[in-house]
Amino acid sequence: MKLWQKNTSVASEIEKFTVGKDPDFDLQLAAFDVLGSLAHTRMLESIGLLEKAELDELQRELKSIYQSIQKGEFSIEPGVEDVHSQVELELTRRVGDAGKKIHSGRSRNDQVLVDLKLFFRHQLQQTVQQVQSLFEVLIAQSEKHKDKLLPGYTHLQVAMPSSFGLWFGAYAESLVDDMHLLQAAYKITDKNPLGSAAGYGSSFPLNRQMTTDLLGFESLNYNVVYAQMGRGKTERVVAVALASVAATIARMAMDLCLYMSQNFAFVTLPDNLTTGSSIMPHKKNPDVFEIMRGKCNRLQALPTEVSMMLVNLPSGYHRELQLLKECLFPAFAEIENCLQMMAFMAQNLQVRDKIMEEEKYKYAFSVDAVNAEVLQGVPFRDAYKNVGTAIEEGTFTVPASVTHTHEGSIGNLCNTQIKQLMEIAVSSFHFERAEKALEELVR
Amino acid sequence: MKLWQKNTSVASEIEKFTVGKDPDFDLQLAAFDVLGSLAHTRMLESIGLLEKAELDELQRELKSIYQSIQKGEFSIEPGVEDVHSQVELELTRRVGDAGKKIHSGRSRNDQVLVDLKLFFRHQLQQTVQQVQSLFEVLIAQSEKHKDKLLPGYTHLQVAMPSSFGLWFGAYAESLVDDMHLLQAAYKITDKNPLGSAAGYGSSFPLNRQMTTDLLGFESLNYNVVYAQMGRGKTERVVAVALASVAATIARMAMDLCLYMSQNFAFVTLPDNLTTGSSIMPHKKNPDVFEIMRGKCNRLQALPTEVSMMLVNLPSGYHRELQLLKECLFPAFAEIENCLQMMAFMAQNLQVRDKIMEEEKYKYAFSVDAVNAEVLQGVPFRDAYKNVGTAIEEGTFTVPASVTHTHEGSIGNLCNTQIKQLMEIAVSSFHFERAEKALEELVR
Amino acid sequence: MKLWQKNTSVASEIEKFTVGKDPDFDLQLAAFDVLGSLAHTRMLESIGLLEKAELDELQRELKSIYQSIQKGEFSIEPGVEDVHSQVELELTRRVGDAGKKIHSGRSRNDQVLVDLKLFFRHQLQQTVQQVQSLFEVLIAQSEKHKDKLLPGYTHLQVAMPSSFGLWFGAYAESLVDDMHLLQAAYKITDKNPLGSAAGYGSSFPLNRQMTTDLLGFESLNYNVVYAQMGRGKTERVVAVALASVAATIARMAMDLCLYMSQNFAFVTLPDNLTTGSSIMPHKKNPDVFEIMRGKCNRLQALPTEVSMMLVNLPSGYHRELQLLKECLFPAFAEIENCLQMMAFMAQNLQVRDKIMEEEKYKYAFSVDAVNAEVLQGVPFRDAYKNVGTAIEEGTFTVPASVTHTHEGSIGNLCNTQIKQLMEIAVSSFHFERAEKALEELVR
Amino acid sequence: MKLWQKNTSVASEIEKFTVGKDPDFDLQLAAFDVLGSLAHTRMLESIGLLEKAELDELQRELKSIYQSIQKGEFSIEPGVEDVHSQVELELTRRVGDAGKKIHSGRSRNDQVLVDLKLFFRHQLQQTVQQVQSLFEVLIAQSEKHKDKLLPGYTHLQVAMPSSFGLWFGAYAESLVDDMHLLQAAYKITDKNPLGSAAGYGSSFPLNRQMTTDLLGFESLNYNVVYAQMGRGKTERVVAVALASVAATIARMAMDLCLYMSQNFAFVTLPDNLTTGSSIMPHKKNPDVFEIMRGKCNRLQALPTEVSMMLVNLPSGYHRELQLLKECLFPAFAEIENCLQMMAFMAQNLQVRDKIMEEEKYKYAFSVDAVNAEVLQGVPFRDAYKNVGTAIEEGTFTVPASVTHTHEGSIGNLCNTQIKQLMEIAVSSFHFERAEKALEELVR
Repeated sequence: MKLWQKNTSVASEIEKFTVGKDPDFDLQLAAFDVLGSLAHTRMLESIGLLEKAELDELQRELKSIYQSIQKGEFSIEPGVEDVHSQVELELTRRVGDAGKKIHSGRSRNDQVLVDLKLFFRHQLQQTVQQVQSLFEVLIAQSEKHKDKLLPGYTHLQVAMPSSFGLWFGAYAESLVDDMHLLQAAYKITDKNPLGSAAGYGSSFPLNRQMTTDLLGFESLNYNVVYAQMGRGKTERVVAVALASVAATIARMAMDLCLYMSQNFAFVTLPDNLTTGSSIMPHKKNPDVFEIMRGKCNRLQALPTEVSMMLVNLPSGYHRELQLLKECLFPAFAEIENCLQMMAFMAQNLQVRDKIMEEEKYKYAFSVDAVNAEVLQGVPFRDAYKNVGTAIEEGTFTVPASVTHTHEGSIGNLCNTQIKQLMEIAVSSFHFERAEKALEELVR
Repeated sequence: MKLWQKNTSVASEIEKFTVGKDPDFDLQLAAFDVLGSLAHTRMLESIGLLEKAELDELQRELKSIYQSIQKGEFSIEPGVEDVHSQVELELTRRVGDAGKKIHSGRSRNDQVLVDLKLFFRHQLQQTVQQVQSLFEVLIAQSEKHKDKLLPGYTHLQVAMPSSFGLWFGAYAESLVDDMHLLQAAYKITDKNPLGSAAGYGSSFPLNRQMTTDLLGFESLNYNVVYAQMGRGKTERVVAVALASVAATIARMAMDLCLYMSQNFAFVTLPDNLTTGSSIMPHKKNPDVFEIMRGKCNRLQALPTEVSMMLVNLPSGYHRELQLLKECLFPAFAEIENCLQMMAFMAQNLQVRDKIMEEEKYKYAFSVDAVNAEVLQGVPFRDAYKNVGTAIEEGTFTVPASVTHTHEGSIGNLCNTQIKQLMEIAVSSFHFERAEKALEELVR
Repeated sequence: MKLWQKNTSVASEIEKFTVGKDPDFDLQLAAFDVLGSLAHTRMLESIGLLEKAELDELQRELKSIYQSIQKGEFSIEPGVEDVHSQVELELTRRVGDAGKKIHSGRSRNDQVLVDLKLFFRHQLQQTVQQVQSLFEVLIAQSEKHKDKLLPGYTHLQVAMPSSFGLWFGAYAESLVDDMHLLQAAYKITDKNPLGSAAGYGSSFPLNRQMTTDLLGFESLNYNVVYAQMGRGKTERVVAVALASVAATIARMAMDLCLYMSQNFAFVTLPDNLTTGSSIMPHKKNPDVFEIMRGKCNRLQALPTEVSMMLVNLPSGYHRELQLLKECLFPAFAEIENCLQMMAFMAQNLQVRDKIMEEEKYKYAFSVDAVNAEVLQGVPFRDAYKNVGTAIEEGTFTVPASVTHTHEGSIGNLCNTQIKQLMEIAVSSFHFERAEKALEELVR
Repeated sequence: MKLWQKNTSVASEIEKFTVGKDPDFDLQLAAFDVLGSLAHTRMLESIGLLEKAELDELQRELKSIYQSIQKGEFSIEPGVEDVHSQVELELTRRVGDAGKKIHSGRSRNDQVLVDLKLFFRHQLQQTVQQVQSLFEVLIAQSEKHKDKLLPGYTHLQVAMPSSFGLWFGAYAESLVDDMHLLQAAYKITDKNPLGSAAGYGSSFPLNRQMTTDLLGFESLNYNVVYAQMGRGKTERVVAVALASVAATIARMAMDLCLYMSQNFAFVTLPDNLTTGSSIMPHKKNPDVFEIMRGKCNRLQALPTEVSMMLVNLPSGYHRELQLLKECLFPAFAEIENCLQMMAFMAQNLQVRDKIMEEEKYKYAFSVDAVNAEVLQGVPFRDAYKNVGTAIEEGTFTVPASVTHTHEGSIGNLCNTQIKQLMEIAVSSFHFERAEKALEELVR
């Protein structure tokens, strides 16, 4: 069953080539497709294109299909082209011709558009929550290990004292900034394209604000040509947001791969979280961090992949937009996987103590030594010279303690403030609006 | 003069290779470097690292240098490595040793970080304003040409009636969504890294909140390790935002190149805005749109360029971060150029009328014909069949007029609402905080 | 069963995360893994690390496993980590402890390296053959339609007469140049990494030239550190070669999407190869070309994806290299799919005749008119003026015929020479060496 | 002076926007533009479109212009659009109207195409030679330091003994494989597009084989539509080849940045080749390697940049192709710079000795210990167990020496064979054909 089916049957190779893996991905859209139809039919009735009785019947059966989807009992039958056709088919089986009426004032184009927006909105919420979970683990580890020093590098050269408090906290704060991109993606996603039909609107007197409210969107994609143009653009911005989170995780994983090397030996893992070799007992391969790094670096190419498929496409729908599902859908799974795994691993990470006592890190304290003299009134250039001379003559000694006190320094991590930034970021998503609306829709 | 100069002089080839074109780009940072020093010195005095008299002198001379920069009278002398050294040199010439004191509690690392943040913040504001200007031109053109129909395409096949009102308006609304990415970039930029020193903080009791307020930043990059990690990350997010605007312009340019082709002939340009050929009088080459498309498509590779330079770099400063200036600085100029040129060209675009009267666009009205019957009570499947038959028998006639009334459709463009979305977007940047702070700093 | 299994069992989440979809992809390597072992064991026997009797038994059973793979009867059992372990397991079941001996002087690192090289070599050969098939279709269509003119565009403006002979032939010749990249990929692939062990060689007196000859490689990756470095690099170069073929197909598909639009109407397709709409009878959606364009544009991002995973990885093996299988393996299937589908569609393409008779293409002949006068002795500037005046005065007439005679022009397509270039390109791969060697190995 | 100048003057903003930085880049094409004209005019005379006397005069003056270019005395005058116009202007000043005749049967499109091919061909030859120089340095260093061991890593974990002989040699062999991509680029470049005019050929009876021979091209871009399609494609393939060399250098630079860290301390540099800090005497910042890594990683984004500008452009010339000069021309300079600098630095690199004596590298010898027992007849599993036990009980001792003997291993680097591979690769370019042809042309 294909909505556009013509008398001449489409050669089956063609169908296989063009449909591809689409039905697999479409399954993930099923619940959202029904939600869209629940809103659309209520609107159709409000403008007189459905009878009240038809609406009641349709709502009842759509909700029943929604339940079966939630229970995992829904599938796309062989020969049915996509999720929209499958839902319509089920509906027609149950309520007869009224099932076909739900297609008034709607095209598959805006139907899939609204499905995708609802899906991405849902997925972004999941991602935000996972980011938050990792954030909390990192802040906790930062607090736990705030007194453990490690060398800070510039140019990969030992430069200054740093700490695990700083190191864990830095990645936590990085996630706060990633939230800004997730929010941009969410905002672009949280606008209703339904009613744009094939990208040029409809001559039916649709009430688009009504479906916007029913589906809990913040606003509309007003212009119908733009609503269609949002296909691809939305995917690109979502890709960019996921890539930003991925970049944070990948960098952290790279640090950890180095820090687990015998040449750094800053951290280690319990044996059962690494792979190794029985005749090289010191070898603890950080496979998890390597796979994570690889997955996350691959995700950083996702925006390019999406852009490459969009560049120079004139406005209006093109069939290959369908392929973007293959790019985006697995990406959500990957990033969630990596976020969860990093949270798990970060919790299990064993941090070595007294790292800074090694001779090779000694001079990392020289700037502090200079500053200490300056604070006692010695002019900077003199203090600098004194320390330089001490080093040259081999009399330089490591200061008794590191006392950095300013905001964000070793002794004053400001994790409370960073947590506050995260709370502000998360609260500005206003997930509750969407959640409440959808809940009401299926009640 | 190099701040890190050692007794052994650095081979000049090395210097040439590593310094590269940096001083050229640094010139654009000069004003921001002075602003950073104005704030830093006031903070140093507040914690007792500068005398009040020293501060007064330094402030006076820094403001004087700032004036000379504004007048275009500032340059980096040959042999001086970067803008920071040049400013320090000028200062030392004027006030002697106190000039050197401004370096307390600061490293070139956080100095360039704060310069870049101030520079990007300023540039993003410019970009936002140019986007707004183009937006206004597009909305005006949308209103002006709202009654001019053109065919709407799906699969590049004539599908439905569209209009220039819709077409111009769609690109205007696209710019609203681009604002969300510009805002993410702005938010990430609008946090103060000063005080992070070489990425590991300082043992001086710096007051980072004070410089944050003086420089009009919304907040701090609290964690000093993260502050340094923001180098590169900020550039990546800025690149992503510029690329998003570029994607909108490029797509519009692609449409226009097609629409100017003899095969579409939807729009044209005054002769003096095209290139042509005296023996092919119909030829009006849309060079401007092609160059614009090329420049903007190139900008869409910018995030990849930046990412490729950052991937798998362990945390901490690395020298190549300097090269990101070469990627980002010209990008701002390019996008502004393209925004201005598109605004200029869009204003001069001549839109053809009565396009839809051509035979080949006739069937674009068939869906409207079906809907018209439905609205008169004919069941959809019957209406569909009626129109299908009329087409088959050659009796199909184009409806007298197109009456689309819903939000965002041909007859109800909702440009007012779209303008409102733009206003909300722009006002949420709060540019005034930064502007006011910097003004006070140099007063 | 994991080769590196330790007493402490690896947490199952870890295993799931790190192993991922690897076994699925590994199945495609099974035959090549056995081929590698067939060569390796013969070499081991030659240096005294296997008895002749052991070798005979191993060869017999390896060949038997090879047969079962060819028959599709081989699978990786649940709990078995990868194809190498599965083959070793099967072997040990059949021949006991000698099965384990085949691991002497080899590590999983060089084992997978040689499997991948053999697999890529095989796949590249397939790709080359499919490119050749498409090439032949295009040349045939070029010859068939050589007299059908179509307008040639510059700046998407009608410029000069072109022909379908030229258009089809251009894409054929493009494939010749793509061969050069396929050959670079093949050459890099056709070097034996076996014997590099974990990337640092072995203290066993391996005979690497012997396995090179047995497996039909042109040469060795001599340096063992480089052999390991080839992982990732090989994938990158293969990706680049596939992307180049993809770029040719994508561009052709873009042309066809335009040419099928009502605004060009240069070509069409039989109804059963398009999708359409019963109330827009002229609509013939080129879905196949759109999907092809999308798939091929996506493939153009593949090199970025691979590079993004490799950038800044220090030398030596890293676990994420395994993920490159997920990038590369499906890419071969995609490109073959697209090559076959384009060959099928190009054969079925219906080319419109007499396109150039439309008024809008008239001036495309003006340059020819000028040249005709020049050839009759009129100075160029005068001829140019004459034609210009005729056009201005409306007296310009289209020349009776187009007579372009030089190499590669409308009247002299040089398809014979282009075919010759293709033959030279294909013959320089020397596929027969590899084929013959592998055949002997399993005989 | 613009060749396409119309009565209506093109608005100057437009000109500034579309011409951009093109004249700067064009200057690099000047010599090649003249070479193209030297060949084209000889061909024109051969088919009767120029008199013998005109030809002689033109050849004389073109050679004189060529000389002035070589001497650096040529420039593009303000108001002259491009190099082609400037050369024609100079010629017309010298020989009058005959100067204009050289434009017969040629368009600016194929003129710039042939200029670019000649330029790229020349640049690729330079690049190949610089790659060869670096290769020789690396081989020399490999030989010099062949006895110096360093730990070999897998997963960044100490795994096996490696050597500086292997390490240097690996990068040398990597350059051999990069040659295959340079050769693909060279082959695609080494085909003559001249005679394709605006991409649709000419009605003049041009002799394209003649210009092909005169310019020393290996072959033609036969099909004129393909010749034009080569614009962009050639740039893409060249970009890919440069990116491949860049990837090799970048990875080597990354290794070196690590190896210079105090945590590895495998290599160092003379003081005057690093930057440092007088109070951190151990700090030797590898700025040169960092900048190199950055530049080379940036080059790895070049193919994406080029692709992004080409994707979905229909066939035929488009103005933005001009912008590719801005992408490609500086890339040649960058890669040469990096190749030279790496050769210089590699020569000056100081390699530490006795690295493997550190306790942490001890177990890297365990596999060798197992193998040694196996070679003495102990079954593998027993040998493995023996060594494992020795390690567990603390009785494991490092073997007296490392004796790896197979091809490409520590004790048998096969640098001679690798050098042979390089010689074969370089000789297959056949640079002499092009060199000889161009020499004769200007004689």
